[in-house]
Amino acid sequence: MPVPRPIDWTPTRAVRILDQTLLPDTERYLDLDTVDAVAEAIRTLRVRGAPLIGIAAAMGLTLVSREGPATLEAVCAASRTLGATRPTAVNLRWALERMERRAADAAAAGDDLVPALRAEATAIWDEDRAMCERIGRFGAELIGGDALVLTHCNAGALATGGIGTALAPVYALHDAGRRVAVVADETRPLLQGSRLTAWELSRAGVPVTVIADGMAASRLRLGDVTCVIVGADRIAANGDVANKIGTYGVALAARAHGVPFYVAAPSSTVDPATPDGARIPIEERAAWEVAGWRGHQAAPAEAQVWNPAFDVTPAALVTAIITDRGVFAPRDVAGAG
Amino acid sequence: MPVPRPIDWTPTRAVRILDQTLLPDTERYLDLDTVDAVAEAIRTLRVRGAPLIGIAAAMGLTLVSREGPATLEAVCAASRTLGATRPTAVNLRWALERMERRAADAAAAGDDLVPALRAEATAIWDEDRAMCERIGRFGAELIGGDALVLTHCNAGALATGGIGTALAPVYALHDAGRRVAVVADETRPLLQGSRLTAWELSRAGVPVTVIADGMAASRLRLGDVTCVIVGADRIAANGDVANKIGTYGVALAARAHGVPFYVAAPSSTVDPATPDGARIPIEERAAWEVAGWRGHQAAPAEAQVWNPAFDVTPAALVTAIITDRGVFAPRDVAGAG
Repeated sequence: MPVPRPIDWTPTRAVRILDQTLLPDTERYLDLDTVDAVAEAIRTLRVRGAPLIGIAAAMGLTLVSREGPATLEAVCAASRTLGATRPTAVNLRWALERMERRAADAAAAGDDLVPALRAEATAIWDEDRAMCERIGRFGAELIGGDALVLTHCNAGALATGGIGTALAPVYALHDAGRRVAVVADETRPLLQGSRLTAWELSRAGVPVTVIADGMAASRLRLGDVTCVIVGADRIAANGDVANKIGTYGVALAARAHGVPFYVAAPSSTVDPATPDGARIPIEERAAWEVAGWRGHQAAPAEAQVWNPAFDVTPAALVTAIITDRGVFAPRDVAGAG
Repeated sequence: MPVPRPIDWTPTRAVRILDQTLLPDTERYLDLDTVDAVAEAIRTLRVRGAPLIGIAAAMGLTLVSREGPATLEAVCAASRTLGATRPTAVNLRWALERMERRAADAAAAGDDLVPALRAEATAIWDEDRAMCERIGRFGAELIGGDALVLTHCNAGALATGGIGTALAPVYALHDAGRRVAVVADETRPLLQGSRLTAWELSRAGVPVTVIADGMAASRLRLGDVTCVIVGADRIAANGDVANKIGTYGVALAARAHGVPFYVAAPSSTVDPATPDGARIPIEERAAWEVAGWRGHQAAPAEAQVWNPAFDVTPAALVTAIITDRGVFAPRDVAGAG
């Protein structure tokens, strides 16, 4: 069974996306043929995951010609529209700047912009897919055999243009015929673990067991988990890792039970300008995410909520960082960036 | 503002309960005037929490006279009905056996059974209330001043006939005019933290902040939490503590950040017959609790679920155990039982 593909070109070169807000109940693909439709899909989290957002924006920019002449001016206006959807996503800005440069080069050479934009978007996607494959290969070598992998949140195919980052070693082992299974933290408040990780692994034929986040420590104590693998939103120069809230508690439990704790991420996630985790700003999100789920209230209205989106796992708790440039000890990770 | 009262006698000596399944959205009290109605309320978790279940069953048994003569035979039949509602609840069986003995004594003396049963049920309730008060006093002395307390699950007024166990020191400090606030883990899968703990504290005027379970480690790292207090379902002779799933991960995080980790429980929770935590059987519950959220599906149907209801925190991670007989080091707790 293939790994699900959250983005694609349609036969007419529009952008086809899997609407991730409907998962796991409904697998609905949307064909988007305007820049605004792609922007809306990114804004409303139909497309999510930092690498995938960059790819979707790049592909979306190629649609500029559907509403008028594809001038450099129109490309830059469309890029601003797409760039405003998720202002904090680094990959989004990086991909759009790359697209604008390519458009400017084509314009300077007197070439048609649209084929150049399509080539660049496809290149961005291809490079991301190759990055995932390399992480998968390095991670599979590191694990070296059958495995039960515990993960948190979704750093899988649904977050990238390929086989994911944290889940890439899982898919690589599965493809190599190893017996590999996953324990997925459900990952409150937004449940990316139960909704997305469990769905994509099931679709790919990888056995998956969902647990509530508070069960991870007990599961690690059981002794059947080979290793933990999580993604990363930013890695500081000293190897401290910012990732989805809940990761740090898993790292503490892994250390308590001697289970290796791996971080898998593109080398571009390493930020040499951030010396350590204390300098990573942590976004606080809306109270309703914790007070309820999908519009169903749990906490009383009088209660306060604290809802940090990320936490920082200190380098000392990280066994190794798996990147597309190889496997690094946390203290050496600046060399990967 | 008073601490909510989840059980009471009605003016006509029926049993009034707060329907906890409707919290926090709806505060509805039900007047139950048959044994079967009380049994149904226990079975469907309208009444929950080990001490409160015992009290509710004892009070429910007094209703036996409403459907026929209150013979010893009728009392024993009603006791079997009530005892079958939650077969694993120790307090339930203990309370019903005590009620049957009182009925037998009254029958032997030729007395009317119903006044005897009412007196015994009231005594069970009064003793539980006094037990909560003592835990509150010992815990408040231990903490000694203003406090931010992190707790997991609900071991509060809604679980007992008084001011709770884990929350008793909070209410005692609040009553004494101390500035006390609570950080409540939402406690997946059944959300007793956000639904019940946050509700009862809000009603009593104690500020409460709800967090997802995966946020506890980050919150303990922040440095503003004075101590963790949790309840216990069973305490082994060596001081290992079984409590709601997720407690163990909180204990690991508290240790990592030097935050005191207290367990508050009636001395009857200490089981001298259980030498250590490894001998405590852990109930596994239904998959839907984790796969969904208040009846709304989150995980795909293909995913497996692991849903242990409790975990074991080793004595080495417990700073002290607060009981109605005083505060004990975990290794000395057998002396409390």
